[in-house]
Amino acid sequence: MIKVGIVGGTGYTGVELLRLLAPHPQVELIAITSRKEDGMPVAEMYPSLRGHVSLAFSSPEKARLTECDVVFFATPHGVAMAQAPELRAAGVKIIDLAADFRLKDTAVFEKWYGLPHSCPELLKDAVYGLPEVNREAIKTAQIIGLPGCYPTTMQLGYAPLLAQGKALVNEAALIADCKSGVSGAGRKAEISTLLAEASDNFKAYSVKGHRHLPETTQGLQAIAGRKIGLTFVPHLVPMIRGIHSTLYATILPEARELDFQALYESHFKNDRFVDVMPAGSHPETRSVRASNMLRIAVHRPDNGDLLVILVVEDNLVKGAAGQGVQCMNIMFGLDEATGLTHVPIMP
Amino acid sequence: MIKVGIVGGTGYTGVELLRLLAPHPQVELIAITSRKEDGMPVAEMYPSLRGHVSLAFSSPEKARLTECDVVFFATPHGVAMAQAPELRAAGVKIIDLAADFRLKDTAVFEKWYGLPHSCPELLKDAVYGLPEVNREAIKTAQIIGLPGCYPTTMQLGYAPLLAQGKALVNEAALIADCKSGVSGAGRKAEISTLLAEASDNFKAYSVKGHRHLPETTQGLQAIAGRKIGLTFVPHLVPMIRGIHSTLYATILPEARELDFQALYESHFKNDRFVDVMPAGSHPETRSVRASNMLRIAVHRPDNGDLLVILVVEDNLVKGAAGQGVQCMNIMFGLDEATGLTHVPIMP
Amino acid sequence: MIKVGIVGGTGYTGVELLRLLAPHPQVELIAITSRKEDGMPVAEMYPSLRGHVSLAFSSPEKARLTECDVVFFATPHGVAMAQAPELRAAGVKIIDLAADFRLKDTAVFEKWYGLPHSCPELLKDAVYGLPEVNREAIKTAQIIGLPGCYPTTMQLGYAPLLAQGKALVNEAALIADCKSGVSGAGRKAEISTLLAEASDNFKAYSVKGHRHLPETTQGLQAIAGRKIGLTFVPHLVPMIRGIHSTLYATILPEARELDFQALYESHFKNDRFVDVMPAGSHPETRSVRASNMLRIAVHRPDNGDLLVILVVEDNLVKGAAGQGVQCMNIMFGLDEATGLTHVPIMP
Amino acid sequence: MIKVGIVGGTGYTGVELLRLLAPHPQVELIAITSRKEDGMPVAEMYPSLRGHVSLAFSSPEKARLTECDVVFFATPHGVAMAQAPELRAAGVKIIDLAADFRLKDTAVFEKWYGLPHSCPELLKDAVYGLPEVNREAIKTAQIIGLPGCYPTTMQLGYAPLLAQGKALVNEAALIADCKSGVSGAGRKAEISTLLAEASDNFKAYSVKGHRHLPETTQGLQAIAGRKIGLTFVPHLVPMIRGIHSTLYATILPEARELDFQALYESHFKNDRFVDVMPAGSHPETRSVRASNMLRIAVHRPDNGDLLVILVVEDNLVKGAAGQGVQCMNIMFGLDEATGLTHVPIMP
Repeated sequence: MIKVGIVGGTGYTGVELLRLLAPHPQVELIAITSRKEDGMPVAEMYPSLRGHVSLAFSSPEKARLTECDVVFFATPHGVAMAQAPELRAAGVKIIDLAADFRLKDTAVFEKWYGLPHSCPELLKDAVYGLPEVNREAIKTAQIIGLPGCYPTTMQLGYAPLLAQGKALVNEAALIADCKSGVSGAGRKAEISTLLAEASDNFKAYSVKGHRHLPETTQGLQAIAGRKIGLTFVPHLVPMIRGIHSTLYATILPEARELDFQALYESHFKNDRFVDVMPAGSHPETRSVRASNMLRIAVHRPDNGDLLVILVVEDNLVKGAAGQGVQCMNIMFGLDEATGLTHVPIMP
Repeated sequence: MIKVGIVGGTGYTGVELLRLLAPHPQVELIAITSRKEDGMPVAEMYPSLRGHVSLAFSSPEKARLTECDVVFFATPHGVAMAQAPELRAAGVKIIDLAADFRLKDTAVFEKWYGLPHSCPELLKDAVYGLPEVNREAIKTAQIIGLPGCYPTTMQLGYAPLLAQGKALVNEAALIADCKSGVSGAGRKAEISTLLAEASDNFKAYSVKGHRHLPETTQGLQAIAGRKIGLTFVPHLVPMIRGIHSTLYATILPEARELDFQALYESHFKNDRFVDVMPAGSHPETRSVRASNMLRIAVHRPDNGDLLVILVVEDNLVKGAAGQGVQCMNIMFGLDEATGLTHVPIMP
Repeated sequence: MIKVGIVGGTGYTGVELLRLLAPHPQVELIAITSRKEDGMPVAEMYPSLRGHVSLAFSSPEKARLTECDVVFFATPHGVAMAQAPELRAAGVKIIDLAADFRLKDTAVFEKWYGLPHSCPELLKDAVYGLPEVNREAIKTAQIIGLPGCYPTTMQLGYAPLLAQGKALVNEAALIADCKSGVSGAGRKAEISTLLAEASDNFKAYSVKGHRHLPETTQGLQAIAGRKIGLTFVPHLVPMIRGIHSTLYATILPEARELDFQALYESHFKNDRFVDVMPAGSHPETRSVRASNMLRIAVHRPDNGDLLVILVVEDNLVKGAAGQGVQCMNIMFGLDEATGLTHVPIMP
Repeated sequence: MIKVGIVGGTGYTGVELLRLLAPHPQVELIAITSRKEDGMPVAEMYPSLRGHVSLAFSSPEKARLTECDVVFFATPHGVAMAQAPELRAAGVKIIDLAADFRLKDTAVFEKWYGLPHSCPELLKDAVYGLPEVNREAIKTAQIIGLPGCYPTTMQLGYAPLLAQGKALVNEAALIADCKSGVSGAGRKAEISTLLAEASDNFKAYSVKGHRHLPETTQGLQAIAGRKIGLTFVPHLVPMIRGIHSTLYATILPEARELDFQALYESHFKNDRFVDVMPAGSHPETRSVRASNMLRIAVHRPDNGDLLVILVVEDNLVKGAAGQGVQCMNIMFGLDEATGLTHVPIMP
């Protein structure tokens, strides 16, 4: 059994980790920390976990995280890098759901997150936890920086186009029009995500610049091995879970004859959690609700030069906690899908 | 033109007052106060008001409220009673949307609101602003304590039964099962009313006791002229606006022959904002959305001894701001419906 | 392995059965019928099942249902009783999610469902599939009439009060104020449950009389062994899944000293899918979303004579498909919770 | 007073016309037709109109539409062109909310709507009812083909870019990523827009081709006086009202120095129902809910070559009924905003 600790179990990605890990056949939950809720049974805050999780939150000091095999950080940015050195010294593997170990360039990290990186030496060895791109590296990783929710959809949606030896599309002018449910904003007391504000409403936000842009650009460039240019426009959808990314790319003249549907199917043929839908499909976010699946559909309207790639995921699963468990499975030599075979909830 | 000031214009009842008062043909908006947003144009916080309201928020000190004819308080409990003496000394009428001037018994106020009443001498003369019950008193009132949103539905829903010379129902055992949209909780940064928490969800709350209980009991007893007993169970509905109250009352043997539909129609025949629906109707909250109308349907399942009264209102209009404007119209001798003839928004 | 057939797999209870049965460790799915969709892969209609269900819909003629061990009917009323005799002749057990085998009195059935009962001789032996009440009878049942969604909450919510030797509450005047998400109306093309009609809205319906009333009355009387009187008022909540029933009962003078919290905890102490919450709780429908759990909280406002019982379930699971699987487990000697241990989805 | 008739008053655009026209100071409602609901009082179907509309639906035969000054068609495609000749012969003006008089090329009409155009001679004189583009022509128009909901946002969103003497952006590769609430699908009994299907969900649809594409292309080309190329991807948002269009255009090198914010403000400076928001704004659909306003924000991320134009409207008002009333006002020489000054409903 893998001994697992969770730092910061009170937010949405934390409770989602608990939902996935509590019944995981190879996991023993050792500790869940929350300084503020020290002593409170987890199931008292989250009655959905009554009968499934008997642990109480404990303050970080009491939590004996160094006895774990792996610790998940479901915390705000900055927490994981502060605690990482001690855990690594004790041989504990780390999976960070926040941004501390995503960006390779500490200057970029500091610019977008407003704080200096406290352990660049660990960052060097951290692996970006996107299994469909980095599976081999994840197998031996000691620290995982998990992708953000939007970046997962954009990278997997563009990967088959960029991963070829030569450019197929205008890589300097990619456009990602992305839409997310409000759970992506986290479990924070804020006016803008109140039901009375966000329901029966739709808006774009952060058009000027969003933290997921540099991460995605870095990832796309790593896939392509070339410089790429991306415009990313996020929108807020009045729903709880789900991301729908509509990706645009202009086909280069020399690639006009390519069968893009076949390209996508072939690219992901060994990936259990990526489902390339039949040509002409319109994947719905609910088709992956509460599951680790990501679905993609490839469109080429009027057989013209513009590709329209539709990607859906559950932002809390494939976009966060589920992807973390997927990485853990790989890191510990388990079947990649262990504990992740949930049927999506429909309706 | 009536010179109107609003204290606390940043919450939902405040912006609703602005929606109703800005185009009101007899109103001149003089000042809207907000200490925190001093100087910010109202339409910057609420783009829905662009082109309709050109005022900026001002701190209470600058607002010259004493030059107004009437001041609305759309503030937390306790604010109106603190400012009332100065305004009254200047001859300004007051309409309080909070609870400061609702409860006649200051001990009850202190018990439920946790603070002593600071101006019991003004409270004495305050009028409870429910026009369908207190129209005459409102005409000459200087201070109005506006009913809460739930209490408006319960009092108007039970009024025809209780306002008769003798009891028609078991007045000791009334049951009000009420359901409200989340705007009733106000525009406050709280986790429990986030879209990700409150949507696709339903729950009861405050079953042990809710502040609207003593107010409603006081009002029902005033209508009946007798002691009544009420159980009030509020629930939270995943919608923005609207209250649906399902009221139960057991018919006394001596009233079994009564035509309750006729009783209700007759009782409200002169009330423009109460619509007694045809027998057998199921009023929907959306049928009054964004309007000052309250609709009632009277049911007697299986022609038995239990009356089931269905009442709907928009909690921000007839349950708050609209009722306030209705009272203002009465206080200043205008037609009661001036500025309140909006067609409900459907769908 | 239990060979399972499903008749009518295209509605919400049908797809929910598929979600629960596909990964069930003791079940082999043999056939799913739909005359209209004959030949269409199930996962084409429900992409959420891609990778989980490889069956196609087949017309009833081709489906070889008589080779199954058990057949679930997720069909409109009237279908199960038409096909039951042939299946029973072949020794196939039947679990009907509709009303054909719920009501013992065929005259009552005919009155509320508008069609004569076609196999009263089978009805005689049918068992009402509420395990917490009828577990022993279910073990040997050949035909199960599964409770409706509302009736499950009302019967389990009132059971501890009624199951005692003598009356504790006024059993002639029970009031059930129930609220359901729209999936309870089924997957039918109807205007009244369009998102544009039913969202941001709340209403009561069928106050005059609802089909679940006679079923619930029959069940409550069976539990009590006495006549009871119930008023049932259903409401429509703008959410997908979930029922919240608020049950009222007036405590008799001789029962005023009883500890009702203890009564409930004791009554359900051996029931894995009924969770009596701590005193003072307000269970939320989302706390059981997509799980077979039903949660109950017992309130006695102001320590008076009125009990307020709050009950939540997922109408498609404990209120339908999950309860069916629970019955199947019992009928085939499996652990009652096999395949039913899902952690509820939150948020 | 303008005598107004409405054909097809039972759908969402029909009831919205009633909401706007009933209190319109210059309008007398003469007739509302519905063959199916002949004789039913309008307010019985739409209780929101109780006290505002006393008319009953009448069959087209009885409706004496030829006595009207203007008739609105809120009908499926094909109805208006069938009745237009008779009405025109009687001198009645026509405003069609469907597509019959939008497309100038009857071959294109037949291709996308699947039926031949029955009165091409009237089509020739029909004016496209987009006041901000065609105000002068509307003044003297006898037949108005009102724009679709999506096309209104796309044309007004791109107009300032295209209306210049020379191209400012790559007009061959415009991309419109549009999102609509479900009321855009009309009040039709369909499974795909049930609350249980469409809420807590997001999807694209009709990526292959949507009827609003040829209409928008025609309109954009009319504005530009040049050929344009547009990709239009519509999405369904789980909300009732509102469209948010995110428009992309690549700035040509020669236009890089242009102040696009100033261009937009200047272009619309005389249009009462187009609000160019301050630079950096993110307009929300609710900021125009139930009003005829359309808001636009201009973005240029990272000061690069891609313009991102955000446009919001209420699809039932500026996208349909409101625009129709706006045209009527212009056609009859009234102030363009008569009866259209509603403050948007927030929250």
